[in-house]
Amino acid sequence: MNFLILAVGTRNSIVRYFRRAFEGVGTVIASDVSELSSAIYDADKFYIVPPISDSRYIDFILGICVREKIDGVLSLIDPELSLLAENEEKFKDVGTTVIGSSYELCETSLDKIQLFHWLIDRGYNSPRSWIDKRAFYKAVESGDAAYPVFMKPRRGSASIGVSKVDDRDTLELLFAHDNNLMIQEFLNGQEIGADVYVDMISGEVVSIFTKKKIKMRAGETDKSVSFKDPTLFSLIEKFVTEAGYRGQIDIDLFDVKGKYYIVEVNPRFGGGYPHAYECGCDHTKMILENLRGNTNRKVVGDYDEGVYMMKYSEVKIVPERT
Amino acid sequence: MNFLILAVGTRNSIVRYFRRAFEGVGTVIASDVSELSSAIYDADKFYIVPPISDSRYIDFILGICVREKIDGVLSLIDPELSLLAENEEKFKDVGTTVIGSSYELCETSLDKIQLFHWLIDRGYNSPRSWIDKRAFYKAVESGDAAYPVFMKPRRGSASIGVSKVDDRDTLELLFAHDNNLMIQEFLNGQEIGADVYVDMISGEVVSIFTKKKIKMRAGETDKSVSFKDPTLFSLIEKFVTEAGYRGQIDIDLFDVKGKYYIVEVNPRFGGGYPHAYECGCDHTKMILENLRGNTNRKVVGDYDEGVYMMKYSEVKIVPERT
Repeated sequence: MNFLILAVGTRNSIVRYFRRAFEGVGTVIASDVSELSSAIYDADKFYIVPPISDSRYIDFILGICVREKIDGVLSLIDPELSLLAENEEKFKDVGTTVIGSSYELCETSLDKIQLFHWLIDRGYNSPRSWIDKRAFYKAVESGDAAYPVFMKPRRGSASIGVSKVDDRDTLELLFAHDNNLMIQEFLNGQEIGADVYVDMISGEVVSIFTKKKIKMRAGETDKSVSFKDPTLFSLIEKFVTEAGYRGQIDIDLFDVKGKYYIVEVNPRFGGGYPHAYECGCDHTKMILENLRGNTNRKVVGDYDEGVYMMKYSEVKIVPERT
Repeated sequence: MNFLILAVGTRNSIVRYFRRAFEGVGTVIASDVSELSSAIYDADKFYIVPPISDSRYIDFILGICVREKIDGVLSLIDPELSLLAENEEKFKDVGTTVIGSSYELCETSLDKIQLFHWLIDRGYNSPRSWIDKRAFYKAVESGDAAYPVFMKPRRGSASIGVSKVDDRDTLELLFAHDNNLMIQEFLNGQEIGADVYVDMISGEVVSIFTKKKIKMRAGETDKSVSFKDPTLFSLIEKFVTEAGYRGQIDIDLFDVKGKYYIVEVNPRFGGGYPHAYECGCDHTKMILENLRGNTNRKVVGDYDEGVYMMKYSEVKIVPERT
């Protein structure tokens, strides 16, 4: 039983978690475009691969799957999720299961405007979003919207390119520099992250871990605290099942005075997943079970509340390769 | 022989390096304002302290020094460097040596405009800087300056609040939102970091580690590669000696077509120090030697070239305290 993790970048913990799950079972192989990816050095073996924009990319990855007898594959970066889903059959043909959601669902999830419409149409709460600035100005004039707002790339992950905007001048300036931005209502509430595993065989939501993200004075540092709320678990289960996600998902939400808003969905392991894992939500073992042909039993909420996670940096040192 | 590290925040590696140096010799104690500092949990013992703006702060720290029989103390954050230097005598009275530079030098270093003038007056290269936007516009009109430029807080560390600005409109907008900014010439060259140790007893520059900072496509990730250049070592030695720094310093430079520019100086352990340490430049042991009353011998350049450092995140998990 061998596993391939694509585009590992600096996600060392994820690679190590998979290695722990596959210990004595098989090898964990990592790939990245760069030898300066810290996480490749934590895998049993790694491949340096062409960029995903390269037309030979999929064949290159399929080649690795054949050579290394890979049973399961997933990617850690957004742009690759749809690509893997699109080529699911080719992977199946070489005996490799793509751990992830369908092509259509990946595409909808990664386009924040599409996701917003999907959610609103089905009665979920989601922060109001505009791609047309004139529509937004009208909403401001009629008192339906107000500053501050967020400006975000319509497609895009992490917080890259996200600005909090207080006035029309700044909004105009940002649009002038980048017209792929969208405007999103600023919600004044508690930011929440959910790490969810949907069984690849049964399609059932088998694990949900929820945490409050803790804002810090100095900015960047990522800290969170685990909590549980049956209402939130039900909402997540309903949403994830209705949308039809599969495998690992990361959901960003807001709690505004007890009302939950769905903000973003990344159909992959999110950067904050180590918190879930360290609290006992081991989704890497669930993936292994699925690859073995076994369904996982439902363990939603099977973790401790009030456990704090604090990120810090560690370094990987590699001598020059000759 | 006991050591106290103040404001450890998320600097887990530094705390661990000191513990390694002081193993079998004494204890390493850490402090922070917050229990959500990941690095306090890596020390032998920690204290949660008032913010440095609190009038009782210094007495609180002196109290720790007495109680824990602290021989040496340093801080990892800029705003505290001058404060420690200012109270050096009080620390000496309780038997604690402040590892750091003089009050005046800390103040000059942390004010980018003051440092710029200090450097230029003594013939060092440094990117041209303006606090008066009209003076900058005049320089642009006369062809002496050009966009893009950096806008940075005059005092401030990391890259918090730093923007690359392409036009006057954006510059005006940024100044309108924050008038503590300064304009700095954009240098098109190789960014360099230097980790330097100046012996606290002899005042001699005993260790210099230099690395090229590697720019990445995706942004944030911090990667660097070690290198050596005798010309750069001489420049650093001359500058550091002329200024009179003591203890650990972190210097940011640019190499523009073989000409070195000094951009910033942080008279403390910088965020990239783990690269130096992992390459064998152990400045924590040098501090221990100084506290023992021994001078360190000069080992400038005693490390391998072409060694890459890649940062990644690790998590610290702490259950709720009751």
